[in-house]
Amino acid sequence: MAALDRSAVRFTASALTDLKPTALADFHRWWAERLRAGVFEVTPLAFAELNGWYFAPGSGNLVHESGKFFEVSGMRVDSGDGEQWSQPIIHQPEVGILGVLVKEIDGVLHCLLQAKMEPGNVSTLQLSPTVQATRSNYTRVHGGAQTRYLEHFRGPGRGRVLVDVLQSEQGFWCWHKQNRNMVVEATGDVPLHEDFVWLPLSQVWQLMRCENLVNMNTRTVLGCLPLARPPKALLPVEDPFRAALLRSYGPVGDDAGGEPEAEALHTLTDVVSWLTEMKTRTAWTSRLVPLDEVTGFSRTADALADDEERDFAIVARGVRAGNREVTRWTQPLLEPRRQGLAVFVAKRVGGVVHLLVRARPEPGLLGRVEIGPTVRRPPAFDTMLSCGPEPFHSHVSGADPAQVRFDTVMSEEGGRFLHAETRYQVIEVGDDFPPDVPEDYCWLTVQQLTELVRHSHYLTVEARSLLACVHSLW
Amino acid sequence: MAALDRSAVRFTASALTDLKPTALADFHRWWAERLRAGVFEVTPLAFAELNGWYFAPGSGNLVHESGKFFEVSGMRVDSGDGEQWSQPIIHQPEVGILGVLVKEIDGVLHCLLQAKMEPGNVSTLQLSPTVQATRSNYTRVHGGAQTRYLEHFRGPGRGRVLVDVLQSEQGFWCWHKQNRNMVVEATGDVPLHEDFVWLPLSQVWQLMRCENLVNMNTRTVLGCLPLARPPKALLPVEDPFRAALLRSYGPVGDDAGGEPEAEALHTLTDVVSWLTEMKTRTAWTSRLVPLDEVTGFSRTADALADDEERDFAIVARGVRAGNREVTRWTQPLLEPRRQGLAVFVAKRVGGVVHLLVRARPEPGLLGRVEIGPTVRRPPAFDTMLSCGPEPFHSHVSGADPAQVRFDTVMSEEGGRFLHAETRYQVIEVGDDFPPDVPEDYCWLTVQQLTELVRHSHYLTVEARSLLACVHSLW
Repeated sequence: MAALDRSAVRFTASALTDLKPTALADFHRWWAERLRAGVFEVTPLAFAELNGWYFAPGSGNLVHESGKFFEVSGMRVDSGDGEQWSQPIIHQPEVGILGVLVKEIDGVLHCLLQAKMEPGNVSTLQLSPTVQATRSNYTRVHGGAQTRYLEHFRGPGRGRVLVDVLQSEQGFWCWHKQNRNMVVEATGDVPLHEDFVWLPLSQVWQLMRCENLVNMNTRTVLGCLPLARPPKALLPVEDPFRAALLRSYGPVGDDAGGEPEAEALHTLTDVVSWLTEMKTRTAWTSRLVPLDEVTGFSRTADALADDEERDFAIVARGVRAGNREVTRWTQPLLEPRRQGLAVFVAKRVGGVVHLLVRARPEPGLLGRVEIGPTVRRPPAFDTMLSCGPEPFHSHVSGADPAQVRFDTVMSEEGGRFLHAETRYQVIEVGDDFPPDVPEDYCWLTVQQLTELVRHSHYLTVEARSLLACVHSLW
Repeated sequence: MAALDRSAVRFTASALTDLKPTALADFHRWWAERLRAGVFEVTPLAFAELNGWYFAPGSGNLVHESGKFFEVSGMRVDSGDGEQWSQPIIHQPEVGILGVLVKEIDGVLHCLLQAKMEPGNVSTLQLSPTVQATRSNYTRVHGGAQTRYLEHFRGPGRGRVLVDVLQSEQGFWCWHKQNRNMVVEATGDVPLHEDFVWLPLSQVWQLMRCENLVNMNTRTVLGCLPLARPPKALLPVEDPFRAALLRSYGPVGDDAGGEPEAEALHTLTDVVSWLTEMKTRTAWTSRLVPLDEVTGFSRTADALADDEERDFAIVARGVRAGNREVTRWTQPLLEPRRQGLAVFVAKRVGGVVHLLVRARPEPGLLGRVEIGPTVRRPPAFDTMLSCGPEPFHSHVSGADPAQVRFDTVMSEEGGRFLHAETRYQVIEVGDDFPPDVPEDYCWLTVQQLTELVRHSHYLTVEARSLLACVHSLW
């Protein structure tokens, strides 16, 4: 397959130039059809109306009678110097698959995505990965239908793996949650189901400009794509920012040979060392506790909410959904109080775009600290564990519109979070941006982020979403 | 510095050919002198004779009154299908530094190592990293002397970092333990203290043939060295195994340019995918519990030991040690019942040595599963969590002596474990070795292991020790 190589996805010329206006019109027609074809109702419930879910005696945890799915437990964080706080947290030990199937069609790399409803979605349907299933789902321990297209991701018939790595999710809302982020190239024919669509990668990038359309799982999987710089000849770029952005993907495959990291401010060894230092500085510890032991949250008939009204509530919802077969279920969801903000500041240094990242401690992360956005307004706790104020917030909130390279509000996982929106921004800064940054910040190239995201637990889910946003700037 | 480059340590000709017999004689003279100069006494104690250590009311955990150092807690493992077991486990949340300082002296790469006593050492002194200190030690929160040579590893005067990564330790004996493995190139002069010695790397490799000499911390740090293949011209190799071993380090720097993984059986993407699959198959969970809740272990006045006499005991020791200043302290240690075994099977495939590794679940590992040896006879629990029988044990126990490329008994960490010996072997197998291996095994090149060990939580501590053994075969 010409457009993909072993370690990096390289685009053919057509993959980058096929963006005809009609193509997106086709997508939107199909999308409108999907919206019309389905039934989607989400109804607020009292906890007592949940079916199969109950507050377990003893712990007070909100659990399902099957012992499966997930539970709402408690988490306590000790600062290491006497302070502590507690909060509810979603605990789901099972690892699921988030998988995007890709295929070269007429010389253009396409992704198979689905129009999928989740109860927490702002806009009912969102563009979701080919496969989005927990292990219980896909191994069908409880019966149920075979997960569609699963055979491309598991078992003897699976395609060629381009990405397959465990990645973390929101560390203020979930306890040690990991999902398997996979991109697999299909071998052979792939019959198309009506809820699915083959989209050129370039169109997916375009669709990331639509509010609440490309879902979190699609973004995190595409953020893990090992993208390389396309050959110069294919990309006559006039905008100096875009030219510098392309150089940030590393040397062109054909004329590699030299130092792959030569243009970066820091070596990858230095970057790993920096993160190691940041991890060893964390004195706090966190652990699961019974939900009954959480303080600062009060439970009413239909919500378990933080008393200060700034973090989140656990609520209950009833769902009626489907197209041919309509199913009903009920479940708890975590509803944040505020919209989140996640920003990558981008700066041209020596003709190469560098992104400013921050080492971010989050109490539910397995490795406690991961690489996150330059600026993040957490839609969750804003306490001793957040790294303190966001020193670069004023730079981004006051940015000239011409500097704002990406700016879209998108949703976090609608299967667990209710109307959890985050505003994702990529903002270019100039030479007036402070050259020296505090020691928990670091300037990385796209190539370095791409190399790190091949491995688990380097980039937070927001950083992976932002990396997908950066890819969309091609 | 000619002998080191940004991402890989490359040897000059002299670094590989400087091994004069006199040199090792010098080392042994210095070592004998160190043994004579010091006082080292380790005395068995009853728990009641421990100073500052006590079994805490409520949990029964064996703790220190300062709340620092480490504690002996309990761990419970649930298999996910009803089975469970429990055991004592060492819990030490603090991350320490294991650091080796290196320097090119007369064109030869040297390591600064120290003769260090630990109470659990089989042979009193072992050859230890330049720095071996917990964060409490080196930040001197409790006063005490400045850790010698620490300034090369932390702060504004530190040297050039070659390796700086968190790595796990024994997952059957320690809970989520991580230490920072560092190799730093000294800049400027380094005054030599009498307990320290500059050794050419080639001599360190030779000394790994001595029983219980090179300690675990030195091995794991050197196992993280990013070694590259020396230029062909410098290494006329006649032994086909050694020639194939050198090819396993990847292409020569000067004539790289081609595909760095071209000669490997699997791509690195496939290897990461294989490990991801192995991690998602683990249904078990583990957690800390009070030591009082552990079953199958019985406590006497001087030991907390497993009833079946096959795993380990927690014991107490008094120590009197030092040379100029003699200090005394008491502490608990974990004493395994049996000698361990850790083997890498090595096979030439297409003229390139591949090492057979196994994905190994260990209940105390943060990531639950890491890449371990081909064969491991755990000096710890041999239960439902061990991956079952060791199918390749008969191949290695019946190996022809000519196939045994490395075979030395070395110790695990003498600060926590009492007389914990492991026999490390690298055994070459021929074409009669089964070509198809069970799905939790994988054939990797040295280059691939070297690439993975740049990141946290891929290789177990035994696999990192074995990787250092492999390096010693040059």
